[in-house]
Amino acid sequence: TARALVGDLHEADLGAVLEALDPEERDGLIRLLGPDFDWTALTEIDETVRNEILESIPNETISEGVRALDSDDAIGILESLDEEDRDAILAGLPLAERIALQRSLDYPEESAGRRMTTKFIAVPPYWTVGQTIDFMREEPRLPDEFTELYVVDPRFCFLGTVPLDRLLRAKRPTRVEDIMGEVAHSVNVEDDQEDVARLFERYNLLSVGVVDDSNRLVGVITVDDIVDVIEEEADEDIKRLAGVGDEELSEGVLQIVRLRSSWLLVNLVTAFLSASVIALFESTIERIAILAMLFPVVAGLGGNAGTQTLTVTVRALATRQLNPGNAWKLIGREALVGICNGLVLGSVTGLAVGLIFARPELGLVIAGGMLANQTVAALVGILIPLTLDKLDIDPAVASSIFVTAATDATGFAAFLGLATLLLV
Amino acid sequence: TARALVGDLHEADLGAVLEALDPEERDGLIRLLGPDFDWTALTEIDETVRNEILESIPNETISEGVRALDSDDAIGILESLDEEDRDAILAGLPLAERIALQRSLDYPEESAGRRMTTKFIAVPPYWTVGQTIDFMREEPRLPDEFTELYVVDPRFCFLGTVPLDRLLRAKRPTRVEDIMGEVAHSVNVEDDQEDVARLFERYNLLSVGVVDDSNRLVGVITVDDIVDVIEEEADEDIKRLAGVGDEELSEGVLQIVRLRSSWLLVNLVTAFLSASVIALFESTIERIAILAMLFPVVAGLGGNAGTQTLTVTVRALATRQLNPGNAWKLIGREALVGICNGLVLGSVTGLAVGLIFARPELGLVIAGGMLANQTVAALVGILIPLTLDKLDIDPAVASSIFVTAATDATGFAAFLGLATLLLV
Ligand SMILES: [Mg+2]
Ligand SMILES: [Mg+2]
Ligand SMILES: [Mg+2]
Ligand SMILES: [Mg+2]
Ligand SMILES: [Mg+2]
Ligand SMILES: [Mg+2]
Ligand SMILES: [Mg+2]
Ligand SMILES: [Mg+2]
Ligand SMILES: [Mg+2]
Ligand SMILES: [Mg+2]
Ligand SMILES: [Mg+2]
Ligand SMILES: [Mg+2]
Ligand SMILES: [Mg+2]
Repeated sequence: TARALVGDLHEADLGAVLEALDPEERDGLIRLLGPDFDWTALTEIDETVRNEILESIPNETISEGVRALDSDDAIGILESLDEEDRDAILAGLPLAERIALQRSLDYPEESAGRRMTTKFIAVPPYWTVGQTIDFMREEPRLPDEFTELYVVDPRFCFLGTVPLDRLLRAKRPTRVEDIMGEVAHSVNVEDDQEDVARLFERYNLLSVGVVDDSNRLVGVITVDDIVDVIEEEADEDIKRLAGVGDEELSEGVLQIVRLRSSWLLVNLVTAFLSASVIALFESTIERIAILAMLFPVVAGLGGNAGTQTLTVTVRALATRQLNPGNAWKLIGREALVGICNGLVLGSVTGLAVGLIFARPELGLVIAGGMLANQTVAALVGILIPLTLDKLDIDPAVASSIFVTAATDATGFAAFLGLATLLLV
Repeated sequence: TARALVGDLHEADLGAVLEALDPEERDGLIRLLGPDFDWTALTEIDETVRNEILESIPNETISEGVRALDSDDAIGILESLDEEDRDAILAGLPLAERIALQRSLDYPEESAGRRMTTKFIAVPPYWTVGQTIDFMREEPRLPDEFTELYVVDPRFCFLGTVPLDRLLRAKRPTRVEDIMGEVAHSVNVEDDQEDVARLFERYNLLSVGVVDDSNRLVGVITVDDIVDVIEEEADEDIKRLAGVGDEELSEGVLQIVRLRSSWLLVNLVTAFLSASVIALFESTIERIAILAMLFPVVAGLGGNAGTQTLTVTVRALATRQLNPGNAWKLIGREALVGICNGLVLGSVTGLAVGLIFARPELGLVIAGGMLANQTVAALVGILIPLTLDKLDIDPAVASSIFVTAATDATGFAAFLGLATLLLV
């Protein structure tokens, strides 16, 4: 009955059912389905849930299941396991498949070599359309779904792709090379998946060929997997900027606390460092206690402005819109934006504070503090992520700590320093 | 010569060239290309640059250009123009095309009706594979590129799709209805583009049928446009969370200052509101000036923790993983995470402060303040975006203001309140 209920589900729906169930129920369902269990369902669920499920399944059974998958889906499952389990599962596979998967796993994480499937249709350029169609009608071992054919020379060098609609519209005697796309979009096995995604976006591709260093076609990447890459990379950036790393919705309280509190502890240290600037002005604050109400406002707005610039910069780096060619132009623009924002905010705040507290010189101090702090915020907001990117550190992860520390410290120092000079 | 240089470029590359040029050079290039200018290039560039270009082209020329485009690309250009220009351009089109585009524009912004193309191949279910292939070989007015055929009944109700690879592998006498996909994935014209994108992600689709309220097929959405939707929606959320709205990289300083400073001014108001809590404790701070160094730390970490929860919540809402079914469970989880984080941070900070300042009671005060603040941060971090979403306000835009204000105010109040009770 359970088998009847879930047996016909799409892999993605079966995945959603598994995610919604309790751990024991999951194992029960998978055992019940036995050989009917569709292993592609595991590629559609959160890594946390998947690894929980895989831990309760014997490695030999996993080997069986992985065998039935496309290579890219198999890699997706294998790459998140620990090395011991991975090796045990690979050992349970026939030699040819083991070697193919092992080769994919040897490519860097998030590289094209990890995302490609090695199941594709390659044809020689001199075949005719008729010959190609007949081949597809007769050959039993074709991929389950495909949208393009890949043209290769005798050395398996990649020459181009033929979308199926062109094949269908061409006359039978036409040669494949005559209907090939003008440009052979290809990526290297070691290319980062995000670069591959930008290529798909830019040229509206359905698939790309993946070639090794001698331009031999070793696999293809399809758009359905790139859709997932784009979503994942954006999700990663948005979460890393907020300090929630690669947290998934299905994670438990303890794991989440472990991840989030370690980020908060790092912030605690930098918060103390920047707050120590305040201690330098203790005697000023003792004399003018109202300053204690105002310096958090200055620093807070610096933090907001820094986050604005930082976010724009991180996105521009991720979408490859920011490059050495326009970096200086953008740094100049952000600096100018920071000064303008400082003038706007400084004058509004200065006027308000001067009037409310009936102390014009206090207004002047906060206006000056804000101008200085907004300018610094804009500069660190762009320079810190650019520097981290140059150092090959993910700017989405580490930037916000430094930006916040810098905007807080300069906010405190500029405002309280001016106050000490002008008011005490 | 310029014509020779850019004439053969892919539309996306021509778009990139246009973006890189100065405004006058852009106009010159387009005038030079004249009728050779590929209007699809305009769909591949930033809205700001596109509108600048369109402003310098007479509306009649734009009408000519728009006519040559697929309906979805035409809509993409028209929807960002002001109404006056849009109407003038539409008026320059032949009646049939004007009506079709006008109908698409009448659907809500970001709806499936705006993203669909009305150029697709519809076939009846009783046609054979051979008949269908012959039709495609002979019919001159097919879409430029396509991956699937759409099966409709005599009333044009949507029955299903036939991917081209299935058609190619089937025998000529097979009927189309026998090789149709089991599920006819379709969306309503009014559905939000983000829901459409989730459908593509979940079921690895190449296209979906778009149907009106009587289930009649009025258009199709293809995966290359969904790739852009996914990127745009993620970009929008990441930027809105940081208060940079829908800013594009090509915008000028003044426009950016206008957008960003208005966000900062809103934050200025809420920063003053939460800072006014500090004024309540002025006499406490006057007596124990060291408190002024500590309350920004408490509030700052509350802000960080609130942002963590907020970001996770906004993402879960955007990816449709958070729904009424699991909302309460997640609220409970976040509350628990907040308490645990409060205990971790509170004890570390309490111990450090108690030891550094050699005042154990000060350590106790900051530990208690942090516990309270972290718990509140977690709760507002999830409740505020959930509430805004219920009120149909984009939680990515408005949440962070409220969350920051709440975490600042409770951070100040909890820490300074406890200090006043226990230390004064
Ligand atoms: Mg990456
Ligand atoms: Mg595109
Ligand atoms: Mg795949
Ligand atoms: Mg997949
Ligand atoms: Mg990244
Ligand atoms: Mg990753
Ligand atoms: Mg939207
Ligand atoms: Mg998918
Ligand atoms: Mg399109
Ligand atoms: Mg397009
Ligand atoms: Mg949205
Ligand atoms: Mg939008
Ligand atoms: Mg802050």
